[in-house]
Amino acid sequence: MTDPAPAPADTRPYSPGLEGVIAGESSLSYIDGEHGRLLYRGYPIGELVKGGSYAAVAELLWTGEWTPTAKLPCQPVSPAVLTALRALPKDAKPMDALRTAVAIWGAEHNPSWPATADQARSLTASSPSALAAFARIRQGLEPVAPDPDLDLVPGFLYQLKGEAPSEESARALDAYFVVGAEHGFNASTFTCRVITSTRADIASAVGGAIGAMKGPLHGGAPSEVVEQIHEVGSPERAEDWVRASVDQGVRLMGFGHRVYRAYDPRAAALREVAESMEQKPEWLALAIAVEDVALRVLAEKHPDRALKTNVEYYAAPVLMGVGLTPDLFPATFALARHAGWTAHAIEQGAANRLIRPDVRYIGPAERHLPGVQA
Amino acid sequence: MTDPAPAPADTRPYSPGLEGVIAGESSLSYIDGEHGRLLYRGYPIGELVKGGSYAAVAELLWTGEWTPTAKLPCQPVSPAVLTALRALPKDAKPMDALRTAVAIWGAEHNPSWPATADQARSLTASSPSALAAFARIRQGLEPVAPDPDLDLVPGFLYQLKGEAPSEESARALDAYFVVGAEHGFNASTFTCRVITSTRADIASAVGGAIGAMKGPLHGGAPSEVVEQIHEVGSPERAEDWVRASVDQGVRLMGFGHRVYRAYDPRAAALREVAESMEQKPEWLALAIAVEDVALRVLAEKHPDRALKTNVEYYAAPVLMGVGLTPDLFPATFALARHAGWTAHAIEQGAANRLIRPDVRYIGPAERHLPGVQA
Repeated sequence: MTDPAPAPADTRPYSPGLEGVIAGESSLSYIDGEHGRLLYRGYPIGELVKGGSYAAVAELLWTGEWTPTAKLPCQPVSPAVLTALRALPKDAKPMDALRTAVAIWGAEHNPSWPATADQARSLTASSPSALAAFARIRQGLEPVAPDPDLDLVPGFLYQLKGEAPSEESARALDAYFVVGAEHGFNASTFTCRVITSTRADIASAVGGAIGAMKGPLHGGAPSEVVEQIHEVGSPERAEDWVRASVDQGVRLMGFGHRVYRAYDPRAAALREVAESMEQKPEWLALAIAVEDVALRVLAEKHPDRALKTNVEYYAAPVLMGVGLTPDLFPATFALARHAGWTAHAIEQGAANRLIRPDVRYIGPAERHLPGVQA
Repeated sequence: MTDPAPAPADTRPYSPGLEGVIAGESSLSYIDGEHGRLLYRGYPIGELVKGGSYAAVAELLWTGEWTPTAKLPCQPVSPAVLTALRALPKDAKPMDALRTAVAIWGAEHNPSWPATADQARSLTASSPSALAAFARIRQGLEPVAPDPDLDLVPGFLYQLKGEAPSEESARALDAYFVVGAEHGFNASTFTCRVITSTRADIASAVGGAIGAMKGPLHGGAPSEVVEQIHEVGSPERAEDWVRASVDQGVRLMGFGHRVYRAYDPRAAALREVAESMEQKPEWLALAIAVEDVALRVLAEKHPDRALKTNVEYYAAPVLMGVGLTPDLFPATFALARHAGWTAHAIEQGAANRLIRPDVRYIGPAERHLPGVQA
C-alpha cells in the first residue's frame, strides 16, 4: 500500500501567497494603484475625509448609504472586559489586550450569524473604549467612561487622556480613521472573510483579523517613521539628512508602496488635513518639510522608480501629533479597520460560500510505524 | 475622472471559495479521499492511533520525529486566565472561553516569531486546562489544578471531572484527539497560516483558527449525531429507525463526506478503539449497532452514492462516552486540532510568504459626494 508519490501529476493552479489569485468579490473598496485612487463604495477617499466623519464612512461601508451626519459614540466596556484588562501584564502588547477584549465581547454578546450592521456598530464602538482603558490601566490610571456626546474618534481620545481633545486633533485622527477603515483583501480582511465563511460570528472574525494585523508584514513597524522624523530633528536639517541617507543607500521609510505607483491617496488626504491645522503639532510640520525634500531628492536620484509617499508616512506624525505613543499605533490602526472588517463580515455573510483552498503535499510518501500492525 | 467600469477586463483566475486552488505546500498530512487514507507525515492515521498517543502525534507534527514515549502533561492556567474565565457569563460558548484564554496566553507569553515547537507545546498543553476550568466554573465548581503525572488527554479529563479517568476512557478520547489533530488546509488551519504569514505570533494564529472552527460549516453541529443516536434508543430499534428515516428522505447524520468517498479512516480508527473497550459506554455500543444497519440500508437504497461513515459519526459517541456534554464538543475538537494548527504555524514560519490574494471589485463606479470638492 506504499505510494511512490502521493500526488504525482498535480495540475491544479498554484500561486505562492495566492498572488494574483482572486479570492472573492466585494463592493466595499476599489484600489487603482496606477493612478493613486482609493474608492469606498465608489467615493474617492479624499472626498470622504473632507465630507464626512469615521462614523459616516463606517455607515457607508456597512449599509451602502451615505449619511454624513451619522454619529457613533463609544460604548462602555463591560465589567468582564475591565476585569480581564486589569489582570493582563502591564507590558502586554496593546493588540493582545484589544483581542482579549474582543474575545470577551463575543462571549458576552454571542452574536448571531450572519453578521449585521447593528453588531458592527456595537463592536466598532466598544473596541476604542477597551484599548483606551488598557492604555490607562497599564499606566496605573483609572479608566474613563465614554462621553455619550462625543463621536467615536474624539470619544476615544477622551477616554485615553481623560479630557476632550481639541477639534483639530479630533479632526486629524478622524481623517486617519477614515483612510484606515478599509483596503480590499489584505491579510487581516481576508482572515476575517475566511472565518466568516464557516458561519462563525463577527467577534470570531474580528478577533482573527486583529491577529493577522499584529504581524509586522501587515500592521507595519510604526516606530520606524517616527524614528526617522526624530533623526531629522528640524526642517533645516531635512535636505542634508535626506541626501546623506539616499547616498548611503538607506531606505527612506514611508515612501514606495506595493500597489500605489502614484502618490498614495490616503497620504494625500492626511497631508491636506495636516496642512489645514492652525496649531500644527511639531511632528506634522516636520513631516511636511521632510516629505517635500525627500520627494525631490528621490525623483532626482531614482528617476526610474515610483517612490511616492505612502500612508505610513503621514500616519505616524498624525498619531504622534494627537498624543499617541508608537506602541499604540498598531492597535489604533486595528480600531480604524474595524469598520472595514465588520463590513466584510456582513458582505461575506450575505452571499456566503466556505473559503477552503487546496494544499500541495510535499511530505514523505506512505511509511509505517515499526511494530504496529494496521 | 469617472470610470465607466473600474475593472473592465479582469483576466485573473477566480474560483469561488478558492475551490481547487492550491494556497500553499505542506508536509504535515496527506488526504486520499478516494481510497480512504489519511497520513500524518507519511504515517497512516490507523497506525498512529494504535502505536502512539496524542503527545507522540503532536511531536511528530511539530518536529517530524516519531517518539512514541513522548508525554505532554497539561500546564496550569495563569491567574489572569482564571480571572477572565470567572468573569465570563456562565452561558458563554466554550469556544469563546477558549479563545479568551488563548488571547490572554498570548498577552502573557508574547511569543516570538517564527513559531517554535516549544511555543506549540506550551500553548497546546495550556488550552485543555483553560477549557476544563471554564467547564467547572460555569457549573459553580472550583477548577482543578493539572496533575503533572498525567498525559494531556487523561489530564484534561481529570481537570474536567476532578478524578482520573479510566484507562479505557482516556484511550478512547486520546484516539479522538489523534484523529482530530490535523487535516490539511481546512478553513481554521488556513486561517492559522494566513495570520502567521504576516509574521504574527502563534497565539494570534490559534486564536483566529478557533474563530474559524466556531462556525458550524467547519466545527460542525455536534449535537445532531447525538440526537440521532438518542432517537434510535436501542440496537433492536436500529433497523426500523434507519429504514423509516431513509424512506422519508431524512438525511442520516455521520454518513458521507466531501473528500472521503471510501470509509473515513478516522472513523475506522475510532470504531476500532471503541470495539476494543471492555466496558463499552452505552453510546458506543449503540453507535456500532446503528452503523452496521445504516451502511447496509444505505448501500441497498443508494447503491450509486458513496455514503460511508465519516468521523463525526464516531466522534460524538466517543465524546459522550467519556462524559463530555455536546456543548463542549466544538471546543474539544479545537483542543485536538491545536497540534495541527501550531504545526502549520511552525511550517508557515519556516518558509514564509505573505498570503494576500486579490479581490474582484463589483461595486459602483466612481461617484462623488454632493457638495464636496476633491
